[in-house]
Amino acid sequence: MDTMKSIIQRYQHQRVTLVEAGATRHQSIFNGLKVLAGDHPHSQLPTPQVVIIHDAVRPFVEEDVLVRVVTAAKDHGAAGAIRPLVSTVITPSADGYLDQSLDRAKHRASEMPQAFLFDVIYRAYCQCSDYDMEFGTECLHLALKYCHTKAKLVEGSPDLWKVTYRRDLYAAESIIKDRISQQICVITDTKEDAGCIGFLQELLKKEIEVKGTSVTLCPNGRDLQKVFQGDCYNFVCINMRSSDFQETSKLLDELENAAPSSLYPVAVVSVHFLDFQNVSFSERMKELKEMKDLAKEVKKQNVFLYGLLISFTQDNPQQLQENVRQGASIITSLIKDRNAELTGQLLVA
Amino acid sequence: MDTMKSIIQRYQHQRVTLVEAGATRHQSIFNGLKVLAGDHPHSQLPTPQVVIIHDAVRPFVEEDVLVRVVTAAKDHGAAGAIRPLVSTVITPSADGYLDQSLDRAKHRASEMPQAFLFDVIYRAYCQCSDYDMEFGTECLHLALKYCHTKAKLVEGSPDLWKVTYRRDLYAAESIIKDRISQQICVITDTKEDAGCIGFLQELLKKEIEVKGTSVTLCPNGRDLQKVFQGDCYNFVCINMRSSDFQETSKLLDELENAAPSSLYPVAVVSVHFLDFQNVSFSERMKELKEMKDLAKEVKKQNVFLYGLLISFTQDNPQQLQENVRQGASIITSLIKDRNAELTGQLLVA
Repeated sequence: MDTMKSIIQRYQHQRVTLVEAGATRHQSIFNGLKVLAGDHPHSQLPTPQVVIIHDAVRPFVEEDVLVRVVTAAKDHGAAGAIRPLVSTVITPSADGYLDQSLDRAKHRASEMPQAFLFDVIYRAYCQCSDYDMEFGTECLHLALKYCHTKAKLVEGSPDLWKVTYRRDLYAAESIIKDRISQQICVITDTKEDAGCIGFLQELLKKEIEVKGTSVTLCPNGRDLQKVFQGDCYNFVCINMRSSDFQETSKLLDELENAAPSSLYPVAVVSVHFLDFQNVSFSERMKELKEMKDLAKEVKKQNVFLYGLLISFTQDNPQQLQENVRQGASIITSLIKDRNAELTGQLLVA
Repeated sequence: MDTMKSIIQRYQHQRVTLVEAGATRHQSIFNGLKVLAGDHPHSQLPTPQVVIIHDAVRPFVEEDVLVRVVTAAKDHGAAGAIRPLVSTVITPSADGYLDQSLDRAKHRASEMPQAFLFDVIYRAYCQCSDYDMEFGTECLHLALKYCHTKAKLVEGSPDLWKVTYRRDLYAAESIIKDRISQQICVITDTKEDAGCIGFLQELLKKEIEVKGTSVTLCPNGRDLQKVFQGDCYNFVCINMRSSDFQETSKLLDELENAAPSSLYPVAVVSVHFLDFQNVSFSERMKELKEMKDLAKEVKKQNVFLYGLLISFTQDNPQQLQENVRQGASIITSLIKDRNAELTGQLLVA
């Protein structure tokens, strides 16, 4: 309960009401319905026409299937998402032998979300036997048994999978990383579109949707806010003319204003084109130290900052092209991996 | 077929025979059985007592369940792995409404592997109707229908999951990365066990099983071969006294001899303790260039080489401890991520 409260507070959710869970799935659902029915002393919530029941372990549900189960519930009293079976279902005998195998084509797996007219599902739970309450799993079954409501079945998508095993956590993490790595916003301090900056952008576009380039950051940060609300979690800040982090620091300030608490880590790659022959080691080390300190600071706001030096070999255009190409691969892989331990590093292409 | 042949050749499998697939699952299985029955003109294979049927999409099967289905098949003629149902199974009516929901506790999902006495499954396939051949999915069902053999059902583990969707590929990749990141072999060029090397090892041990430290590499590589055969895919080479890559180069040579073709990428982290105040920038850049070239070279043998400089602040032991701590985190995350694009980089702690 405390964990849930802290999540709601942290992300400033306004329309969430928490209800104490019960000992079983059905008891928990019933507790939620009671609050909506106005049976609960402190409840201020109006009774809805339709309720959706969903599992927290299916976080990738799409809006489309929610709309379809709600619409079907309005028309038919109850509706639930179904999926084809992935394995054959069999009936074992009491001593552990195969008794019967069911025809896979004639059966479906019942998944979530499900939607009900409030009256239907509330009446069903009010009449529910103790046995159903304790051992039952299927809400559609309760609506059928106690209210004679035949649920309309709606084909769901593979997104409705349950995060059950450790492998599912791995998959969920990769899916989220994949989703937030789809777009990058490139920011430069130069208007020069041709040359290596243009080439770098071309290469990035092949891998990721590049969202737009602003020559300088808008002082009030409104542009950035728009980018951010468009679900862009990745920024590449190209410093062509300055070798310090001025532009990057500015971006980081703006980011903090635009999105004070981001659900996902934001990746910022600070790119510097540098002629390695013209810089001193002590200068480099000072910058690396600065970069590390800055990265440590912004990590608290869930911003992952990485540095990338691209060797600007003016006298060798072929080598330069190769370096830019490697730089693009490094940027893409930093964004996709979002490795928390590598923040503050200065990579070299 | 060519892909399979090239895999067999690449990893030098000696005991694999390929058989052309059929248009359906059952036809493919039958093709395999025919070769074992000696019906095939070029077949040299003896007919076995028991055959195991398995899906390539279940790559994480454990030896234990294979033993159990084979043993049960010897006793009962047929056996298959089962798992609890993850969703309720329902029967939809023709017009898409809920007709019936099955009691989850009374049913199981039939998975692979399955095992059969050769005679039982071969006789079943020989009698199989065209309809079964085309639309059937369940081998246990064929044994029951055509040979009246009631399969013994064996409880399987969650490892038997099917790699079906994109999310499953993500999960499979993470599971493999996880498995090959369980052990590291630490190699140093100094006998000094106390101080920062000892501390670094302590920290690594907290995250990963550290497999053993050899002061110098054994000249004939026999030690390394043993480590390698013990499924160790990770090496940390600590260069305390030299700032060049001598020790690391030696390790890489040995690795190439010990494991000319590794199924998984081998991660090598070359760690250097360095007093940053005593090195010149041009020297550093030369080394970085060397590291990059070396990394590019060994990547062809599926070895991922990363460099890590740990700042050796002799006058500030607290800072040194902090640096070593960060170094350990970087090593662990490099090994776990196995990012191909970051090979050849020189990270700094």
